[in-house]
Amino acid sequence: TGVATMKFKSPPVNSLSLDFLTEFCISLEKLENDRACRGVIFTSAVPKIFSSGLDITEMCGKSTEHYAEFWRAVQEMWLRLYSSNMVTIAAVNGSSPAGGCLVALSCDYRIMVENPKFSIGLNEAQLGIVAPFWFKDTFVNVVGHRVAERSLQLGSLHTAPEAHRVGLVDELVPEEKLQEKAAAVMAQWLALPDHARQLTKSMMRKAVLDRLVAHREEDIQNFISFISKESIQKSLRMYMEMLKKRK
Amino acid sequence: TGVATMKFKSPPVNSLSLDFLTEFCISLEKLENDRACRGVIFTSAVPKIFSSGLDITEMCGKSTEHYAEFWRAVQEMWLRLYSSNMVTIAAVNGSSPAGGCLVALSCDYRIMVENPKFSIGLNEAQLGIVAPFWFKDTFVNVVGHRVAERSLQLGSLHTAPEAHRVGLVDELVPEEKLQEKAAAVMAQWLALPDHARQLTKSMMRKAVLDRLVAHREEDIQNFISFISKESIQKSLRMYMEMLKKRK
Amino acid sequence: TGVATMKFKSPPVNSLSLDFLTEFCISLEKLENDRACRGVIFTSAVPKIFSSGLDITEMCGKSTEHYAEFWRAVQEMWLRLYSSNMVTIAAVNGSSPAGGCLVALSCDYRIMVENPKFSIGLNEAQLGIVAPFWFKDTFVNVVGHRVAERSLQLGSLHTAPEAHRVGLVDELVPEEKLQEKAAAVMAQWLALPDHARQLTKSMMRKAVLDRLVAHREEDIQNFISFISKESIQKSLRMYMEMLKKRK
Repeated sequence: TGVATMKFKSPPVNSLSLDFLTEFCISLEKLENDRACRGVIFTSAVPKIFSSGLDITEMCGKSTEHYAEFWRAVQEMWLRLYSSNMVTIAAVNGSSPAGGCLVALSCDYRIMVENPKFSIGLNEAQLGIVAPFWFKDTFVNVVGHRVAERSLQLGSLHTAPEAHRVGLVDELVPEEKLQEKAAAVMAQWLALPDHARQLTKSMMRKAVLDRLVAHREEDIQNFISFISKESIQKSLRMYMEMLKKRK
Repeated sequence: TGVATMKFKSPPVNSLSLDFLTEFCISLEKLENDRACRGVIFTSAVPKIFSSGLDITEMCGKSTEHYAEFWRAVQEMWLRLYSSNMVTIAAVNGSSPAGGCLVALSCDYRIMVENPKFSIGLNEAQLGIVAPFWFKDTFVNVVGHRVAERSLQLGSLHTAPEAHRVGLVDELVPEEKLQEKAAAVMAQWLALPDHARQLTKSMMRKAVLDRLVAHREEDIQNFISFISKESIQKSLRMYMEMLKKRK
Repeated sequence: TGVATMKFKSPPVNSLSLDFLTEFCISLEKLENDRACRGVIFTSAVPKIFSSGLDITEMCGKSTEHYAEFWRAVQEMWLRLYSSNMVTIAAVNGSSPAGGCLVALSCDYRIMVENPKFSIGLNEAQLGIVAPFWFKDTFVNVVGHRVAERSLQLGSLHTAPEAHRVGLVDELVPEEKLQEKAAAVMAQWLALPDHARQLTKSMMRKAVLDRLVAHREEDIQNFISFISKESIQKSLRMYMEMLKKRK
């Protein structure tokens, strides 16, 4: 059918570790170069979680070189996904904070399970960190400036119904209908001639993609100097402690 | 009353041919220079169709010079309409795909007949072609980035109720109330002092207008090289065949 | 609690006179520099009016030097308020046209009394004047391009329910619940770590703030040459006459 499904399977919570990101980019590039593949559906094989976002262990107590390598991998993932020539659909079957939300925001279409226990959002501010400008740009392109300003400042995690109301996801479906629905939406998008659709997508996203490309090294340096601060390291350690206790 | 009505009457479907565009620009310029005229309502004298958009016969099997002349006329129409000092209202009494939709989008206000058989949208992608960046900019200014991204990629033709829901048109009315409603809305806009309203309109639209003015020749060259491709010519010919068979 | 309330008390209508603006800026700066203060709620001590906007007497029959001083004070107020590191909430307990609306738009959150007799909007065009580009930019950041274009051209004063519907205010409450609601929303925003929230706010607003900073003197000159026109002076005088008669 020309449609691939990429199932995130990195228990317990599909963290975006350096390994995960590297594998993600390799898989995406393979599909991108496969002329038989025209669309890809992203979903999770882990119950209740789509992706928990960037792996905090990669940002805690590591070397400057490691931070640089990790951040470049995060950028790479987004650059490839947001500019993909394929039709990209997020079938969000669980919670999806921070970087997990970015993955969904970077797709062409977002379908989420209507379970109000699942939430999604760029909640970086809650951890005392700031979403990078290109997370923000991607978010603004989806929900507009006002919703983004409020949601980013509050670090909001929106329940599925809220996420639908503010435009963060396009559609809600019962869990058992998710894959069927994703396939149906994909068929609708693939009914269009690829070339015109790809050029149109590129026209819509170029300004935001170019902005990171132009400031990529600067963005890495910003990340390193921010993440290396003792105050930030401390709050990340506290957050990890809290997560451990929850288990 | 200071209000002109421009009725499109170029059967069968009010295609934006080179002749139509030339006459449109001359008429608009006359009204613009007529101090007694403060507003203009655009509507169709052809049943069921507002305008079918750019005339495909102007883009098929013609010379490079012809393509350049045609495209310059399309640009000129938009530059004059989008920057008009008059209050411009689209009274959309029929379907309005592609360039027809652009005419409506470039007005200050859009009222559409509530008939769900009438549709409107920038459906270029369905024909394998790409809406130019200034069609896109105009669309984004009306419906926002997200709706525009999805609608342009899918080449969506929205039924009147859908078009109202996504913000593509401002209001729906029964067909028999359309002209009355357009006149009432016009009266509301003309209650404002012209000078302040004109400066405000210019402030809102300047960035997007300037962008085409700055890239006008480049845009013409892009159009020529795109439209001259054998693959594009072939799909336009197929589309014209399909239209002929429909009749 | 770390929350200040700034109550506008300049009867009869809380006009933004040069004195009012100067005092506003001094008070805001004091709070900004007070580490114990993390948020500020703006509301009115005058019944039925939040703020009537710029004081027209400051713009009528005065010297060029006075116009320059006044306009610089208006700019200063906005620059400080829109970029404030504190959480800023507008508790709009009355009508709020023009500059009064700008104050509300520049906050992080807007709660308005649900009384449909209270209205809010950038109605400059109704007086024959044009909202400056940074009023427009602030408005677009809140309501999006389309709503702003229409509302600014028509100089619309939106009733409280309408203002909520178009996104100009975030929430409506009964008058007796206003202060309680403002305090509750403030508590929600203050639950976030200050530093990340402040950096996020700055990221969202920087482009628009920088634009005025870069064009500040030019904007003052524009204001002076516009306001000094005899036609504008005449319409402001007529407007003041009308206001006097109303009383």
